[in-house]
Amino acid sequence: MIIKKKGNWFKMLFEWNGSVLPQLMPRLILLLLFSIVVVYFKPFLLEHNLHINPAIFTLFGIALAIFLGFRNSVSYDRFWEGRKLWGALLNDTRSLARQSHSLIDSSDYDEKREEFINLLIAFVYSLKHQLRHTDASNDINRLVSKDFANTLKEVHFKPIILLRELGNWVKTAKKEGKLDGMSQLAFEENLNKLSDIVGGCERIASTPIPYTYSVLLHRTVYIYCFMLPFGFVETLGWITPFAIVFIAYTFVALEAIADELEDPFGLQPNDLALDTMSQMIENTLLELNDKKITPQNNSKYYYIT
Amino acid sequence: MIIKKKGNWFKMLFEWNGSVLPQLMPRLILLLLFSIVVVYFKPFLLEHNLHINPAIFTLFGIALAIFLGFRNSVSYDRFWEGRKLWGALLNDTRSLARQSHSLIDSSDYDEKREEFINLLIAFVYSLKHQLRHTDASNDINRLVSKDFANTLKEVHFKPIILLRELGNWVKTAKKEGKLDGMSQLAFEENLNKLSDIVGGCERIASTPIPYTYSVLLHRTVYIYCFMLPFGFVETLGWITPFAIVFIAYTFVALEAIADELEDPFGLQPNDLALDTMSQMIENTLLELNDKKITPQNNSKYYYIT
Amino acid sequence: MIIKKKGNWFKMLFEWNGSVLPQLMPRLILLLLFSIVVVYFKPFLLEHNLHINPAIFTLFGIALAIFLGFRNSVSYDRFWEGRKLWGALLNDTRSLARQSHSLIDSSDYDEKREEFINLLIAFVYSLKHQLRHTDASNDINRLVSKDFANTLKEVHFKPIILLRELGNWVKTAKKEGKLDGMSQLAFEENLNKLSDIVGGCERIASTPIPYTYSVLLHRTVYIYCFMLPFGFVETLGWITPFAIVFIAYTFVALEAIADELEDPFGLQPNDLALDTMSQMIENTLLELNDKKITPQNNSKYYYIT
Amino acid sequence: MIIKKKGNWFKMLFEWNGSVLPQLMPRLILLLLFSIVVVYFKPFLLEHNLHINPAIFTLFGIALAIFLGFRNSVSYDRFWEGRKLWGALLNDTRSLARQSHSLIDSSDYDEKREEFINLLIAFVYSLKHQLRHTDASNDINRLVSKDFANTLKEVHFKPIILLRELGNWVKTAKKEGKLDGMSQLAFEENLNKLSDIVGGCERIASTPIPYTYSVLLHRTVYIYCFMLPFGFVETLGWITPFAIVFIAYTFVALEAIADELEDPFGLQPNDLALDTMSQMIENTLLELNDKKITPQNNSKYYYIT
Amino acid sequence: MIIKKKGNWFKMLFEWNGSVLPQLMPRLILLLLFSIVVVYFKPFLLEHNLHINPAIFTLFGIALAIFLGFRNSVSYDRFWEGRKLWGALLNDTRSLARQSHSLIDSSDYDEKREEFINLLIAFVYSLKHQLRHTDASNDINRLVSKDFANTLKEVHFKPIILLRELGNWVKTAKKEGKLDGMSQLAFEENLNKLSDIVGGCERIASTPIPYTYSVLLHRTVYIYCFMLPFGFVETLGWITPFAIVFIAYTFVALEAIADELEDPFGLQPNDLALDTMSQMIENTLLELNDKKITPQNNSKYYYIT
Repeated sequence: MIIKKKGNWFKMLFEWNGSVLPQLMPRLILLLLFSIVVVYFKPFLLEHNLHINPAIFTLFGIALAIFLGFRNSVSYDRFWEGRKLWGALLNDTRSLARQSHSLIDSSDYDEKREEFINLLIAFVYSLKHQLRHTDASNDINRLVSKDFANTLKEVHFKPIILLRELGNWVKTAKKEGKLDGMSQLAFEENLNKLSDIVGGCERIASTPIPYTYSVLLHRTVYIYCFMLPFGFVETLGWITPFAIVFIAYTFVALEAIADELEDPFGLQPNDLALDTMSQMIENTLLELNDKKITPQNNSKYYYIT
Repeated sequence: MIIKKKGNWFKMLFEWNGSVLPQLMPRLILLLLFSIVVVYFKPFLLEHNLHINPAIFTLFGIALAIFLGFRNSVSYDRFWEGRKLWGALLNDTRSLARQSHSLIDSSDYDEKREEFINLLIAFVYSLKHQLRHTDASNDINRLVSKDFANTLKEVHFKPIILLRELGNWVKTAKKEGKLDGMSQLAFEENLNKLSDIVGGCERIASTPIPYTYSVLLHRTVYIYCFMLPFGFVETLGWITPFAIVFIAYTFVALEAIADELEDPFGLQPNDLALDTMSQMIENTLLELNDKKITPQNNSKYYYIT
Repeated sequence: MIIKKKGNWFKMLFEWNGSVLPQLMPRLILLLLFSIVVVYFKPFLLEHNLHINPAIFTLFGIALAIFLGFRNSVSYDRFWEGRKLWGALLNDTRSLARQSHSLIDSSDYDEKREEFINLLIAFVYSLKHQLRHTDASNDINRLVSKDFANTLKEVHFKPIILLRELGNWVKTAKKEGKLDGMSQLAFEENLNKLSDIVGGCERIASTPIPYTYSVLLHRTVYIYCFMLPFGFVETLGWITPFAIVFIAYTFVALEAIADELEDPFGLQPNDLALDTMSQMIENTLLELNDKKITPQNNSKYYYIT
Repeated sequence: MIIKKKGNWFKMLFEWNGSVLPQLMPRLILLLLFSIVVVYFKPFLLEHNLHINPAIFTLFGIALAIFLGFRNSVSYDRFWEGRKLWGALLNDTRSLARQSHSLIDSSDYDEKREEFINLLIAFVYSLKHQLRHTDASNDINRLVSKDFANTLKEVHFKPIILLRELGNWVKTAKKEGKLDGMSQLAFEENLNKLSDIVGGCERIASTPIPYTYSVLLHRTVYIYCFMLPFGFVETLGWITPFAIVFIAYTFVALEAIADELEDPFGLQPNDLALDTMSQMIENTLLELNDKKITPQNNSKYYYIT
Repeated sequence: MIIKKKGNWFKMLFEWNGSVLPQLMPRLILLLLFSIVVVYFKPFLLEHNLHINPAIFTLFGIALAIFLGFRNSVSYDRFWEGRKLWGALLNDTRSLARQSHSLIDSSDYDEKREEFINLLIAFVYSLKHQLRHTDASNDINRLVSKDFANTLKEVHFKPIILLRELGNWVKTAKKEGKLDGMSQLAFEENLNKLSDIVGGCERIASTPIPYTYSVLLHRTVYIYCFMLPFGFVETLGWITPFAIVFIAYTFVALEAIADELEDPFGLQPNDLALDTMSQMIENTLLELNDKKITPQNNSKYYYIT
């Protein structure tokens, strides 16, 4: 996810990196060339009545804008729901870390508590890796015992098994008399919430917008843009290619952004900054456990609030 | 539900299976033929002033797009709510499975716990079968005792009776002193959530969008599309049939997708993948209970996260 | 609420009962006649410059479509919220019925439990009758004791007094040592939810969409439709009446549906099927209490899932 | 809030009181006169080319409709959220009243219970008065002890201090052994909800839609309406004034309704009926405490369900 | 955030401070000058066919309005969610303050309770300062002990460490026998909510609308506005500059407001009044602890309800 300081309104007009423009360039150049060809053959088209009345483009362009608006809302909602889930992940892990202080009535529990915090951190990283289909073992190895790391290597739903381990940690603490049944349930409630977060992320990742929608809008947007020159060649002449590319840019770019946001856990420029967020959760959990945040933990994103 | 790897933007234009195009083909061909007839009789129409001013089509086409946009949002919301309910089903069954470990204070309870897990899995399958009006007995027989399977055969609301059985399992565990009153309530809370999920699915399945809406929009879309040739025959000539079919395709396809998504639990290509999801829930619950997932359980959809 | 099996796309075009068409017919015929008169006086209108530029109709028609879209969303949301509340009613009464099994630790409580289930069923029916301003006494008399039925006759907020009685039933069970304080609270929580459902239904029933909105849109839609002939008489000639009636049908029908859905608890064709739903809740609660569902309870809607 | 029985569709066209028409009349008459002047100077305008192409009005009118649609949604959401909060107020006070029966294990507590119910009613009225900036003392004096009424006179956030008193009542009941710690928490939970309701109402009342939005749309709507005659004078002639006033009426009225609904707790005709609702809550709470509702309590709005 | 008494409808047309007009003035003047130049070169443009058909502006303008409508909804939702979080902050701190009275069973706890209230107030201010990247030490120093203020100076996530301290205060009270385990959990629940609020604010502050959206719309709006004169110069003549600036004002101003609301915690005129709200929370918490609100606490915003 690209977070940039906004420049003034004028510079923003010429922004390059922060947009989907680079990726769309080839297609827009293709459209430009195509439009130029159409303008070149204008006399031929007029002669054979092969130009189209602009009225039909107005009608259809507005309809298309309405449908694109719908697609955008849906994609953005998925993006924002993904973000909310990771926000809830931050909140709940913090609450669990705090409760490992306030609900456990013992001063000689620092080592055990650190184990708990590390399990929480491992849970966060393993969720990130699951969503991105990357290898979690590096992060898991530095955070949990060797034995448990081996168990985790075998299983498919790593975050869920980590949750079970967190539940067992609480159960053990209860058995050792460090907390009562009520407090155990307070922990359990937050573990349930973590289970909801895992499932929510899996839901977004595994259920894209019905593919038919994507195909329909993708197809319609591009066919529409490549038909546009025929509609305006008569009245706009050599202005056509530039006007058409400008309009096409907006339609095509919105479709492209919607397509990127649809899967917010990916690695495209507009996707969620899961790396930064995992790092930030690790930092705040360590701080809650009175650890100094050492330089190697301290990424450049540290001060994101 | 069709989940495909997206091809590049160009190939996607010619996608066939992932769209509703096959199903709509006959109607679009009908419209094409009709348009050709209209163009053929153009001189006759002009002579008798039977062509229509395009302005009225612009006006009405945009109004129609707005109403279709509304219908689409509503249908998609139903689809997504259905998906959320099945996501919650995953989360809550996982939480219950985890709590059967962390809240039950006993090491000699493995067999009983397996019974509980199997009841949970049977609950999931029986909900699927109820929503699809299919026969649940195969799945139920392999998961619950013969006696209880017979009881279930008689009842109408199978998932609800399974929920009661899950509640009774917890009650028995409490009686046997394996958990206290507080922990029982923690189980009960999650069982309540499962009850909400069943009811939520039933609500979506039994209450379609008011039929009048569907009729009104269906009728309007098709009448509109078949009137279109009269509006553009004068200005577009022989381009008319192709332009009209392209526009009609978008309107008609959106109506068709909205119609499919309206009942997300059906068996049409864009409906929810209930089979895959049930299988996946079974797998994750088995894993939570330290079972190796055996090949026969391991469907090709297994790695959906 | 009309639930119909959808016919094929072609038959659906000529659907009559499932639409608001019958109710709107007289107005549409009036409009048709009016349009014919306008077309008849076309020469006179043109002579005195009394026809209107279609541009202004396009502008205003689209604006109107946007406002109608807003009204439709709001009405549909009310309809769907009403449906959700009745769905929650199903879920919560089921949960309470289940808990009357799993939380009450006694085998000699069948008679008392039946009393509880009957109170729940009476609660559902009394809510239905309150929302429809119909007489609840028949349903109440067959479900509760004579004494309590008499008390209920006197009171204004029957479902609320039934809730208090349900609360007292639980209190008595606790006094008799059948459940502990914790379990009582589990019941109380679900009773609170029922209280929320009653209040939610009352809110929808007692607070329509601000009347000014309804008046404004109703007025604008009809004035607009009756002005339309003046805008298109010049260009469309004798096609005018049919084109105008088709457009008017869509606008007017959407307004009419929105008006029906606004109060989802009424008795109009598109309103919620409260009778069926009450019956279905009764059936599922009886089944949860191991009662065979006798034929007289078994309505034709029984298999709605 | 005006709640009227809907007349038939025809009478509704001429509704006067239920609309914002009276309030807008002067402005619309001004616009009418202005349009007449513009039409009168039509030759002069045409001569100096001071009329405007209608195309630009179509473009801008539709854009304006979209923005007005946004403003309307936001205002209506505020109205409906306000209504939901008062609905929740009804639900929660009812739940508290019910729990004062079902959770307090004592038959000699009727007097004390009445004190509790009266505190609840006083809480409702004091919230109403706070939201309307009116004097709460009449309602408070008839419901609470003199001493406490004096305390309340001094404080700024009356409903909050009443909540604390409700909490103290529960604490006292616990001290007297009438309820246990668990039940106290059940009360506390509902008191927390009341705290949320107070804060929710304060939020809506104290945070209007950003003023810039209101100014921008207000200004644009009126400038647009007063420019309209210049756009249509050429094509519409003497029909201009009437057509313009009709269009302006819709735009201006929607802006006016949105403006009214923005603060739903006010005293304008479309605002929430807080008086009726407070009265209704008082009635239902009294009934829950087995009080006959005496005539003076029985307002004409009583039967609102 | 600017809260103004609304003037009458006429004065509101000429509002200056409450709008984004001042900030946009330079750009609009630039556009005005540019338009004048375009009109001046009108003969040259017409001669070389360098004017553009207005139809394409209508098409694109409406599409742009739809996309701007989407951007506005998203920004406003962020603004309103931010407001809701601060509303919840008020509610939860009030609930905690009330519970420090009703759940702690001791009359000699006034001093300790004041410490708790002060920690709550410090929590509110430190959240405000974190969101605005300002220095929290002044507010923290006047509210917490010197030792703890020093600890806070070192940490990055101050509100979270303050939450831990609040949790420890409750733990201590439990150890001293002033409250039982159940009541501790009631406090913990509200502390969890505060943790959610912190995380929610951080989420909005750290995750802007995907930058690509902002760039795309910003660019499109301005290019569109600067192209407009070419479209209307032929038909509007010297009216062009004024008409164009009026249209541009609406589009550009909406984009500017959306941009401001996107980060609701900033210091721009339309952002949330965090100073006032913090002050108001302090006042209501002090009142709940029977403190007279002294003049220096009593800001001019005091009476905001």
